[in-house]
Amino acid sequence: MSEINSAFLTTVEKLWEEKKYNTLRDVLSTMQPAQVADLLAELPENAPAMLFRLMPKELAADTFVEMDSDMQEALIKSFSDTELKGVLNELYMDDAVDLVEEMPANVVRRILAQADPEMRKSINELLKYPEDSAGSIMTTEFVALLPHLTASDAITSIRRTGMDKETVNTCYVIDQYRKLLGVVTLRTIVMAQEDQTMEELMEENVVSVSTLEDQETVARMFSDYNLNVLPVVDKESRLVGIVTVAAAIDVMEEEATEDISKMAAITPTDKPYLKTSVFTLYKSRIPWLLLLMLSATFTGMIITHFEGVLSFSIALTAAIPMLMDTGGNCGSQSSVTVIRALSLGELHFTDLLKVWWKEIRVAMMCGVTLAAANFVKLILVERISPMIAATICLTLLFAVLIAKFVGCTLPILADKIGFDPAVMASPFITTIVDALSLLIFCGFAGMLLTGAAA
Amino acid sequence: MSEINSAFLTTVEKLWEEKKYNTLRDVLSTMQPAQVADLLAELPENAPAMLFRLMPKELAADTFVEMDSDMQEALIKSFSDTELKGVLNELYMDDAVDLVEEMPANVVRRILAQADPEMRKSINELLKYPEDSAGSIMTTEFVALLPHLTASDAITSIRRTGMDKETVNTCYVIDQYRKLLGVVTLRTIVMAQEDQTMEELMEENVVSVSTLEDQETVARMFSDYNLNVLPVVDKESRLVGIVTVAAAIDVMEEEATEDISKMAAITPTDKPYLKTSVFTLYKSRIPWLLLLMLSATFTGMIITHFEGVLSFSIALTAAIPMLMDTGGNCGSQSSVTVIRALSLGELHFTDLLKVWWKEIRVAMMCGVTLAAANFVKLILVERISPMIAATICLTLLFAVLIAKFVGCTLPILADKIGFDPAVMASPFITTIVDALSLLIFCGFAGMLLTGAAA
Repeated sequence: MSEINSAFLTTVEKLWEEKKYNTLRDVLSTMQPAQVADLLAELPENAPAMLFRLMPKELAADTFVEMDSDMQEALIKSFSDTELKGVLNELYMDDAVDLVEEMPANVVRRILAQADPEMRKSINELLKYPEDSAGSIMTTEFVALLPHLTASDAITSIRRTGMDKETVNTCYVIDQYRKLLGVVTLRTIVMAQEDQTMEELMEENVVSVSTLEDQETVARMFSDYNLNVLPVVDKESRLVGIVTVAAAIDVMEEEATEDISKMAAITPTDKPYLKTSVFTLYKSRIPWLLLLMLSATFTGMIITHFEGVLSFSIALTAAIPMLMDTGGNCGSQSSVTVIRALSLGELHFTDLLKVWWKEIRVAMMCGVTLAAANFVKLILVERISPMIAATICLTLLFAVLIAKFVGCTLPILADKIGFDPAVMASPFITTIVDALSLLIFCGFAGMLLTGAAA
Repeated sequence: MSEINSAFLTTVEKLWEEKKYNTLRDVLSTMQPAQVADLLAELPENAPAMLFRLMPKELAADTFVEMDSDMQEALIKSFSDTELKGVLNELYMDDAVDLVEEMPANVVRRILAQADPEMRKSINELLKYPEDSAGSIMTTEFVALLPHLTASDAITSIRRTGMDKETVNTCYVIDQYRKLLGVVTLRTIVMAQEDQTMEELMEENVVSVSTLEDQETVARMFSDYNLNVLPVVDKESRLVGIVTVAAAIDVMEEEATEDISKMAAITPTDKPYLKTSVFTLYKSRIPWLLLLMLSATFTGMIITHFEGVLSFSIALTAAIPMLMDTGGNCGSQSSVTVIRALSLGELHFTDLLKVWWKEIRVAMMCGVTLAAANFVKLILVERISPMIAATICLTLLFAVLIAKFVGCTLPILADKIGFDPAVMASPFITTIVDALSLLIFCGFAGMLLTGAAA
C-alpha cells in the first residue's frame, strides 16, 4: 500500500520540474508521512531537501521518521543547525534514539549538539540499554499522574503537559518516588465524576516489564494481552518509559524475518533486501554454505564406503536423490512447524513427549503412504526387481520416521539449552537426515540384495 | 510469558481440591485474562465452568475471548441460556463474530438465539464478508460524531454512549448519510476549547479501507502508517466498522505462520500445533511430499541415463549429495530472502532486474568461494585426480549460479501472476536445482572425463 503509483509519481515529477512548489506543498499535505517518504525516495537527489522545507512542520517531522537511514543522513547533512534543531524538537524520544543509533558518529555529534539538554539527557540514557531490550525500544514520553489527583485536575494536567507526549490515551499513576501504582485510561478519566481521584479510578493490576526484558518477549505480550502500550519499570519498580504498539509491531516483523532467515541458513540482517549490499549478503550466506557443504562430505564418504553395494544396480544410485529430498522435506516440515510453535509460545520443553507421540504417528502415516506410492511406481513404471524396490521403499519409510523425529526434537532441545531453535531448521536437519538415511539404505541393500545375490 | 508457572499451578490445584473458592476468586482477579485462560486449560475438566461463574463478570468475559475454541464450546454447553446471554452481552462484536465462526452449527444456533436482536443483526452482517477481508476482522463498535458537535457536546455524547465501544480514543466524524468525513482523537477533544466543533477539530486526511480489502494489506497498513485503529468503509464511502490494532496483530501472526508453513511445503492450518489432530497434520503434509517425491524421479532418471559417465569414478557419485545439498541451500537462501521482502512490501515485480543483478554478483562470490574450498579439500584431503575435482567444482559453481537465479526469480514471477510466492520456497527450488545441476554435472563429466579417457 505504501507503494507509489507510477502515474502519481509522474505528476509529482512534472510539478517539480515546472517548479510549482505551492501545488506540490498542497499535494504532499494530503498524503500520509510513509507515502511522502516513499515518494521523496523516487525524486531527483536535490528534491527531498527542498520539498522537506516546504512541508508543514509536523508532516515534515513525521515523514522524516519514515525515511530510510541513508535519506535521513543526506537530509541532515543538508540542514542548517537551526533546521536540524527544528526537526529534532518535533521528534518523539524513541524515534530520536532510533535516529542516533543508525547515524554515523559525526552526524550523531551534530544531533546531540542541536538537541535541547533534556532530549540529549534522555537519548544518552536510552542508548545505555542493551540492544534488543525493552529499554532500547521504549519512549520516555508518557503521562504520569499522582494518586490524589481528581479527574478534573487530571484533565487540566493532561491539557497542560500532554501535547508533547506520545500517548495520553493511557496514563500511569505513580507515587512520589515514581513507583508504578496503577494505570488509568483517558476514557476513564473523561467518563468519571469530576472529584473522583486517580487512586479510585486506576486499575492496579498492571502488566509491566523490566528495562532489560528481551524485546521479543515484550512483543509477545502485546499479542497475548491485546495491549496498546506497555509500561517499563527499573529494578526499583520505578516507571521509566513505555513501549508503544507501533514499536512492538516493528519488533514482531523484525523477529519473524530473523526466524525465517535462520530457517534458510542465512545470518539475519537489519536492512531491507534492496538496501543490503552484495558483500553483506555474501557474508550472511557463505559461512553456512561452507559449513553445510563440508558436512555433506559425510554422505559422500558413505557412498564411497558402500561402493560395492551400490554397484549392484544403478537403480540404487538413482534412488539416492529421491531418498535425500524426501527425507529433507519431511524433516523440514516437522522442524519448521515446531520452531514456529515455539516462537509463538504455543510449545514448551515440557511438551516434548506430546510432540514425539504426535510426530511419530504423522511420520508413520506419511512414511507408509510414500513407500507404498513409490513401490507401485518402481514396479509398474520403472519395472525394477521387487527386491530392489523393497529395499528402496523400506529405507524411505525409515528415512521419514528419522527425519520427522530429528526434525521435531532438535529445535525443542536447542530452545531448552538457550540456543535459537530457528537455526535447527531445514538445512541442518537435511544434512543429518541425509547421512542417516544413506547409512540405512546401504545397510538394507547390503543385507537384502548382496546377501540374496550371494 | 503467558506460560503458567508450575508452582503456581500446583497452588491453584490445591485450592481447587480444598474447595477454597473465595480464595481462588481473589487469586484469579489479580491475573490477566490470557493467563486465566491458560490456567483454566490446565485444571480438571469440571473446574473451568465452576471457576468461570465465580469470576467477576468482566474478567470472565475477557477470559472467555482468550480461550481456545474447544474450551469455549465446552463452556457454552455447560451454560444455562441466561448465563450464555450474560457472557454474550459482555463481548465486543468482533469477538462475538470470531466465536460464531469457530463454533459448530448447533452451538451457533444457541448463540444467535441468546444474542440480543441488535447483536444478532450485526453478527449476521459481519458473517457475510468474505473470509480474510477487512469486513471479516472489523468490529462495528466505534464512536461516530456529527460535524457540527462542539467539543463539550462530544464529551457528553462519548460519556453517554462510549462505555460499550471497543475504542473511544479515536472517534470518527460522519455526515447524516454516515459518509466518513474525518477523524478526531479523544485527546484532541479533551484539549480543545469547549465550543470548537468536530468539523474544526477533525483531521480530514483519513486512511481507510474498503470492506473487501485483503486482511494482509490491512495488517501491512498498521505497520506502514503506525496506526492504532483503521476505519472500514463500504462502496458508498459510508463508515461501517473499524479494525483494531489487536485484530491487525492477529492477522500479522497468522500470515507469518502461513508464509513459514508454505516455505516448508506444508498446507497452513489455523490451529495451534498441539491442538491440531494427527490426521490434519498428515493431510497438510502428504500431498506436497508425494508431489516432491515424484518430481525427484527426474534426478533418478538423469542418473540412470548417465550410468556410463558416472561409472568412470565412484568419486563422481559420492559428490552428488554435496552438489544437491549445496544447490538446494543456495536456492532456498535466495528464495526465502526474496519471499520475505515481497511479503513486507519491500520488493515488487519492477525490481526484478535489480534483484537479478544483486543475486548474480552474490552467486559469483559464493560459487567461487565454495568451488575453491571444495577443490582444495578434494585434492589435499581426498586425493582425487585434479580432472575429476575440476569437474565437480565447475559443476558446483554453475549449480550455485543456477540455484540463486532460480531461487530469486520464481517467487517474484509467482507474485506477479497472482500466486503466493511462499509456495516457491526451498522444496520446489531444490527439486528444480537438483535436476539442472545433475544434468550439468553429467554433461561436464562426459566432456572432461570420458573425452579425456578416450
